Amino acid sequence: MIQTNQKEIQTKLTKNLLDVIVLRLIDHQSMHGYQIITNTRKIFGVYFGPSTVYPLLAKFEKRGYINSQWSMTAEKPRKIFTITNTGKTMIQTAENTINLICKTLNKFDKTDN
Amino acid sequence: MIQTNQKEIQTKLTKNLLDVIVLRLIDHQSMHGYQIITNTRKIFGVYFGPSTVYPLLAKFEKRGYINSQWSMTAEKPRKIFTITNTGKTMIQTAENTINLICKTLNKFDKTDN
Repeated sequence: MIQTNQKEIQTKLTKNLLDVIVLRLIDHQSMHGYQIITNTRKIFGVYFGPSTVYPLLAKFEKRGYINSQWSMTAEKPRKIFTITNTGKTMIQTAENTINLICKTLNKFDKTDN
Repeated sequence: MIQTNQKEIQTKLTKNLLDVIVLRLIDHQSMHGYQIITNTRKIFGVYFGPSTVYPLLAKFEKRGYINSQWSMTAEKPRKIFTITNTGKTMIQTAENTINLICKTLNKFDKTDN
């Protein structure tokens, strides 16, 4: 008997949308990597560790979606990430696309009922 | 100067959500592989070819989300895919998750404005 694993589906989809989730968090408020990890878990209910999140941040910085500066106010230096205008445009495009896909899928729901 | 490529973002996000898109199409109406390819392009605006779609269908069948039977009514035999109850449950879970992520992202929008 095959069972759909709800948590597995949630994790996969959240991971597939992690780019826009992380950018949106940084857009909402500049933060360091560890805050991004804890906020993703708190707000979206799925845990992604440093090995997932840090390479993503490096990719975003390289592409100009975010930039970073060192903060020296904590116990140890922390790299704080801030959204750029390019990043803002990217978020808007991504969210428009996701919303459109959501709406189209939801339309199918209504057609079927 | 770095530019966000709108089409590239759309394609990537649609690909990341292709599992649920394809299952939803099959749930709406049983169809063969080529119809899935043309419908995805028509309805979601992004083209994914046989090398993307056919392995996906094989995976879904193996996991019990869809089953298939040969139709002999066309010029050549065609494999028609039909959703299973397991597939329906999978769609519902996936769509709930996507809708929740959409809503959470949209909430951020409002907070920022």
